Amino acid sequence: MRAIRVTAPGGPENLSLVTTVDPIPASGEILVKVKATALNRADILQRRGKYPPPEGASDILGLEFSGEVLNQVGSWRVGDRVMGIVTGGAYAEYLVTRSDQIMLVPQHLSWEEAAAIPEAFLTAYQTARVLGKLKKEESILIHAGGSGVGTAAIQLAKKFGAKNIITTAGSADKLERCRALGATSIINYKEQDFSLISQKETSGIGVNVLLDFIGAEYFQRNINSLAIDGRWVLIGSMGGVKVSELNLGEVLGKRLSLIGTTLRSRTLDYKASLLASFRNECETALSYGELRPIVDSIFDLKEVAAAHKLMEGNKNFGKIVLRII
Amino acid sequence: MRAIRVTAPGGPENLSLVTTVDPIPASGEILVKVKATALNRADILQRRGKYPPPEGASDILGLEFSGEVLNQVGSWRVGDRVMGIVTGGAYAEYLVTRSDQIMLVPQHLSWEEAAAIPEAFLTAYQTARVLGKLKKEESILIHAGGSGVGTAAIQLAKKFGAKNIITTAGSADKLERCRALGATSIINYKEQDFSLISQKETSGIGVNVLLDFIGAEYFQRNINSLAIDGRWVLIGSMGGVKVSELNLGEVLGKRLSLIGTTLRSRTLDYKASLLASFRNECETALSYGELRPIVDSIFDLKEVAAAHKLMEGNKNFGKIVLRII
Repeated sequence: MRAIRVTAPGGPENLSLVTTVDPIPASGEILVKVKATALNRADILQRRGKYPPPEGASDILGLEFSGEVLNQVGSWRVGDRVMGIVTGGAYAEYLVTRSDQIMLVPQHLSWEEAAAIPEAFLTAYQTARVLGKLKKEESILIHAGGSGVGTAAIQLAKKFGAKNIITTAGSADKLERCRALGATSIINYKEQDFSLISQKETSGIGVNVLLDFIGAEYFQRNINSLAIDGRWVLIGSMGGVKVSELNLGEVLGKRLSLIGTTLRSRTLDYKASLLASFRNECETALSYGELRPIVDSIFDLKEVAAAHKLMEGNKNFGKIVLRII
Repeated sequence: MRAIRVTAPGGPENLSLVTTVDPIPASGEILVKVKATALNRADILQRRGKYPPPEGASDILGLEFSGEVLNQVGSWRVGDRVMGIVTGGAYAEYLVTRSDQIMLVPQHLSWEEAAAIPEAFLTAYQTARVLGKLKKEESILIHAGGSGVGTAAIQLAKKFGAKNIITTAGSADKLERCRALGATSIINYKEQDFSLISQKETSGIGVNVLLDFIGAEYFQRNINSLAIDGRWVLIGSMGGVKVSELNLGEVLGKRLSLIGTTLRSRTLDYKASLLASFRNECETALSYGELRPIVDSIFDLKEVAAAHKLMEGNKNFGKIVLRII
């Protein structure tokens, strides 16, 4: 089959379309004909050699997919249209996965739209709901509102009845699109101090949940934005990892929880459990279009380098999808 | 009634035995004849003017008590021997509290022993079990093992089936007493690096739960001690609050949760719910002596200054109790 491998750590030019052996499902595993996959920040880091895949993972890039089931396993039937996350191997024509790692594609969605769902929605659900424990009438601050996870988190926050959905992004166009998805306050981080606006919008209470892809650069302002008992979920470090000042008195005084998390490195059992919770709370909303994938652009698999360049330029709103044809 | 007030922020000499009006229970409130109370670090900070009581709290010191019920409320009867935590007001002959804030004193315990239970055990339970989610076969690192909370946490960790119960303290005598309570590894923090020993004792996995009363001084070593998915509960800052270096890459890489908490500032509803959970999991063990209060010393109420000096010297093992006669 055709697949994308990294020839050596480096730029997009090091992404190589190769021909390799088809994967063979072990007993109980599903074989999927991949129809589309989508990009994640982790792919970029992995390509640069800065985020090696977990032990035992495929050396083919790609963390999510939509595709067709090719073998019957349990109640899954040949021809089922499914989607899911994997620890690697989705930039390819075929992949194998465990039968508890997939869900059905909503019937109104194309393969490309479906491929834009798994990582964005499962990560947003894990961070905002499972770890962040976002509840009705609470307030949430979502950084990088135009990212795949950001666009999913805005919609989930609305669905779960959040009172204030405060979102940052770097352009007026992205911010207006965040508002259309459900953001109640939009902040251009290049021009405004999000901590002041978060305090103002919540009448001085602060936000109960914060999704942080940025890290060091926003560290103190994130603390300033949070409410008492605030849950601050750290999920990326696009703004660096080195914090040179932390006052634990603020962590104690506000009873803050700083929760570092990643999804790729979790066990398959954790992912199966997360998927089951997500389906329980969100599958119907996906089926009826209340929750919807945001596709920025679609590339053919062989154009993967151009797709990576687009993500590195931070210009996308929503997901960048690769079509496998 | 007689009670202890702080005349002005400062040293133990500013603790004053005063005569003040008896508290009057509102409808549904319990009036308690206090028999004993016990010291907490928060009392010292409050006396120094560095930890003002929450709004609406008594200006009399004291966060816990044992005593006799003086009025019938709900199923509580006159003469019931009870104990509990309060937001202030326990260094006194009488106090009033809500009927869901107290529990029965185990029959084999004296008033002084009972007064040593509430803050230590509820805080240890809240931090190790509710927030730290300590489970069977997990490992826990407990700093200040000789403190009231430390001695309670060691016993709770043993009860909940922890595999490694690693404890730090500042003298060989305290450490041996920690071991007698259930600690599986003891570390003199003046002589040894607890992070190296924590890693060694857990075969390089690290500890799943960490109870941190220290803060800044131990910050990096705490990170080094923790396992993947470790829960690090920050409950004090005896070693300062200013951290000058934090690498968020480690928080992400280990998926750590840093959870700041205090008990005094919580709502009565939170405390009622915590007490209910504690009773459900631990009341029988207290009644049968599997869990027991550790009393370091007993002072009369009028000797409160000497009791505070003892705590400030860090020489106590377990609780310092004040007898109200």
